[in-house]
Amino acid sequence: MIHGELSAPPELAPGALRIFALGGLGEIGRNMTVFEFGGRLLIVDCGVLFPEETQPGIDLILPDFGPIRDRLDDVEAIVLTHGHEDHIGAVPYLLRLRQDIPLLGSRLTLAFLEAKLKEHRIKARSLDVVAGQVERLGPFSVEFLAVNHSIPDAMAVAITTAAGVVLHTGDFKMDQVPLDGRITDLNGFARLGDAGVDILLVDSTNAEVPGFVPSERDIIPVLDAVFLRAEGRIILASFASHVHRIQQVIEMAGLHGRKVAFVGRSMVRNMGIARDLGYLKVPGGTIVTVEELNGMPDDESVLICTGSQGEPMAVLSRIANRDHAISVGPKDTIVLASSLIPGNENSVYRVINGLAKLGANVVHKGNALVHVSGHASAGELRYVYNIVKPRHVIPVHGEWRHLRANAEIAHSVGIDLDRIILADDGVVVDLVDGRASIVGYVPVGLVYVDGASVGGVTDAALKDRRMLGEEGFISIVAAVDMIESKVVAGPEIHARGLGLDEQAFDEVVGRVRVILEESLADGVTDTYELQQRVRRAVGKWVSTSHRRKPMIVPVIVEA
Amino acid sequence: MIHGELSAPPELAPGALRIFALGGLGEIGRNMTVFEFGGRLLIVDCGVLFPEETQPGIDLILPDFGPIRDRLDDVEAIVLTHGHEDHIGAVPYLLRLRQDIPLLGSRLTLAFLEAKLKEHRIKARSLDVVAGQVERLGPFSVEFLAVNHSIPDAMAVAITTAAGVVLHTGDFKMDQVPLDGRITDLNGFARLGDAGVDILLVDSTNAEVPGFVPSERDIIPVLDAVFLRAEGRIILASFASHVHRIQQVIEMAGLHGRKVAFVGRSMVRNMGIARDLGYLKVPGGTIVTVEELNGMPDDESVLICTGSQGEPMAVLSRIANRDHAISVGPKDTIVLASSLIPGNENSVYRVINGLAKLGANVVHKGNALVHVSGHASAGELRYVYNIVKPRHVIPVHGEWRHLRANAEIAHSVGIDLDRIILADDGVVVDLVDGRASIVGYVPVGLVYVDGASVGGVTDAALKDRRMLGEEGFISIVAAVDMIESKVVAGPEIHARGLGLDEQAFDEVVGRVRVILEESLADGVTDTYELQQRVRRAVGKWVSTSHRRKPMIVPVIVEA
Repeated sequence: MIHGELSAPPELAPGALRIFALGGLGEIGRNMTVFEFGGRLLIVDCGVLFPEETQPGIDLILPDFGPIRDRLDDVEAIVLTHGHEDHIGAVPYLLRLRQDIPLLGSRLTLAFLEAKLKEHRIKARSLDVVAGQVERLGPFSVEFLAVNHSIPDAMAVAITTAAGVVLHTGDFKMDQVPLDGRITDLNGFARLGDAGVDILLVDSTNAEVPGFVPSERDIIPVLDAVFLRAEGRIILASFASHVHRIQQVIEMAGLHGRKVAFVGRSMVRNMGIARDLGYLKVPGGTIVTVEELNGMPDDESVLICTGSQGEPMAVLSRIANRDHAISVGPKDTIVLASSLIPGNENSVYRVINGLAKLGANVVHKGNALVHVSGHASAGELRYVYNIVKPRHVIPVHGEWRHLRANAEIAHSVGIDLDRIILADDGVVVDLVDGRASIVGYVPVGLVYVDGASVGGVTDAALKDRRMLGEEGFISIVAAVDMIESKVVAGPEIHARGLGLDEQAFDEVVGRVRVILEESLADGVTDTYELQQRVRRAVGKWVSTSHRRKPMIVPVIVEA
Repeated sequence: MIHGELSAPPELAPGALRIFALGGLGEIGRNMTVFEFGGRLLIVDCGVLFPEETQPGIDLILPDFGPIRDRLDDVEAIVLTHGHEDHIGAVPYLLRLRQDIPLLGSRLTLAFLEAKLKEHRIKARSLDVVAGQVERLGPFSVEFLAVNHSIPDAMAVAITTAAGVVLHTGDFKMDQVPLDGRITDLNGFARLGDAGVDILLVDSTNAEVPGFVPSERDIIPVLDAVFLRAEGRIILASFASHVHRIQQVIEMAGLHGRKVAFVGRSMVRNMGIARDLGYLKVPGGTIVTVEELNGMPDDESVLICTGSQGEPMAVLSRIANRDHAISVGPKDTIVLASSLIPGNENSVYRVINGLAKLGANVVHKGNALVHVSGHASAGELRYVYNIVKPRHVIPVHGEWRHLRANAEIAHSVGIDLDRIILADDGVVVDLVDGRASIVGYVPVGLVYVDGASVGGVTDAALKDRRMLGEEGFISIVAAVDMIESKVVAGPEIHARGLGLDEQAFDEVVGRVRVILEESLADGVTDTYELQQRVRRAVGKWVSTSHRRKPMIVPVIVEA
């Protein structure tokens, strides 16, 4: 287990395989792993990361394409393990750089991706594959293996080159009785393991969680009890890609004589796709429009919507804030059939509190088994290690604490510590003569998408935002005549976010005027120097008088 | 269970008791309940609330003293149930309005409060009381009852007036084998219950959690295992007021031949107080200074510090960021022996990831039983309801979801729904002729402390901060000569937090100049109107060209 300050990697030895991640190690999201062999590159997944509160105003965070930007012509293909945003969301941004990179993935994965590419007006070359299929992509032979996850049609990939075999699990768990009967292909894992797997890249998300993830089916009796007790309307929020969860709700609605409507753009779109492709099975007449649902008795209706993470603009938040056509009251039941992504607690509880205050009965994972995770827990990971018997392990998909916990699981089933590689984004691992080791580092950072800008917003801009957001700003404006050495307009003070009365500034306006006049009289003619003097005076005043540290923006213009 | 838009309460009937909260209902923190009888007021607790991410830059949130501001002379006393910030933190701010209000509480509670009052340079009148004691405070007779909580010396209060008996649990749980042997006084609760309790105010914090809180002692074997396995230094973070938790760590250190040092201002101060008063028992020679500890072998030392909530300036965060004299490596063990307060997840996990990356073994409530809650779970609450047999219940201390869950527990043990009162802050409940009901509402809001300002920062200022924090601002400055109808200086553009190049603004600067010149030529002489025109133009440009919505601050000064 190594990590530290590393230098640029050496040239890749002939016949060796190189692996590095441009995102997804040490964080949850923006998964993207690059494989290099014989001068060619293969990319597995290309996802986005969602910002947290220290990254205000940011829409998305992309993997850093920097290390491969000059080598896009060497890319054989992008292989997508499944259709979640953190695995496919950055594909449009990569295709903007080279549109004809072939995309490989299962039908549902590619269908969700197509919808996204359409929004970006990108027409891609894509090839849908099924579990069991093997594709030759330049020097890479890629076998796709079925895995079970919180979205249908997920796959692991085994990548074979002359250097050896790498098995990448993607996101997975091992529900032994999944709704679609498609279980994680342990037989395939075993076959590969018996033949010899040089490196196993393993999902770490739930490595800290002991035991086994319950089956998706274990939710059925809980939903049944909720439906049985519900007197009024049922509103259920979930992830817009969780086809099996929605399938269960639709079936439960049928059993209890309720009709179902979808609300929310992504929910409507994804369920349409899943239904068209046969992943979502809907008995005739079960699904109605929201308008039709509104004409029905409350106790015959179910609304399925987005907003389970407390997103302020989503339907559920707006209902909780009484800012939506749908109103809820004491007879209604709200179900948040979803995980609670760390960092979203305050938003989610704000929604739950709002709904509870309106009298609704709120069922969520904190008080009922209405969600099971999509990622293998520690118990499942042990099975995988024992079946695959990998020569090396690289824990992937997780924050550092998850990677570390996964490393400990690998070690607990007998894998030597020096064969477990904990790597950060950009850390380069080479497989040479059957031995994998860290050989260097390629610089990768966070690439922010904000409005139309990709990569333009830097950490310095975010630091400014955090300062402005915590303290507000004071702007001091004056126009000076350098020749006459006098202030011809202002000083005026404009402050936002401070919560101070206008009169509070009277004192300091006078002080600034004196400073400007004295400085001009002393022969200062540099506006930058004048601005610095004003900045210091105002900063000192607001810190002493009000114990604040706003951003101070002096603007001295020459008339 | 009622709640809604209410009008001002009627005059209080003679012989009736009035209860309303100025904070602490529908939120966790700033607990403060006012009791009124015969024209006199009694206050139970006066705490602060800590801000969340939608309240950037705010230091503290106080209860709204507005409804009693004109009646401070009627206040008989402030009764404090225990020494946590959310119960005592706002006392200095109330005493600023009337310094001689008597304070009653246990010794430890008052000692923690004194330290705080000293910082505010306030000298208070205080009376320490012990469990079992009864104090006459004007028309109120107040009995103090021992309760068990995550701080020693916590108490419930029974308030008797001619109108009836109210039992207020404060924060409590029911550890049956607490470290100090001081169990929640169920015998007292039973005696009061048998005599008749008109209203029970009950801690709701853990009402959503089924079962019973494990004993503080259940942590011992876990700590023992941690100490046994630890090869290097042990660093343990906890709340600075959790005397019993720290007691256990000190004893464990003794058993394993390690010395203990405290780091962090509040930890050092509180443990000093607790030790002086005999609440913390320290075998001779166990405690050393940090300097002494640094001279000892790692495997003979334990550092106890603050920062268990991921506070960025606390010792633990700084160690994780390698920004502290204490460095950790692969042999060291870090223990977060604390809860994870909702909203702090990202900060806490950031610290855990940082420490894990340095190679340290991080033990926290997510992977070991190193914390037990201080609040009664659903199982314990049922005991209390059945023992007290209250005529009415008002769930307190919790977000709305907790109050509601507590109401359901009360109902499940046979209390009629119309005797369970769910009230928001400011909702007024009168107890008249043995019957309690909601009679009106007194307006209460959130009072923000920011630097030297108490109540000056409004929600409008916070809205500005949020906008600035997400989008930054563009300031456009120009000086105009109204007589000559010309622009004499500028326009200049200053932007912060946008992450746009300076050249990006060239185009719009020209456009603003044209707008100003044309407007002046058209005879516009109102700077406000000029500013509006500039604002619209710049807003439209940045939205169209960059898909951003920063704050736009046009400043046109007259030269």
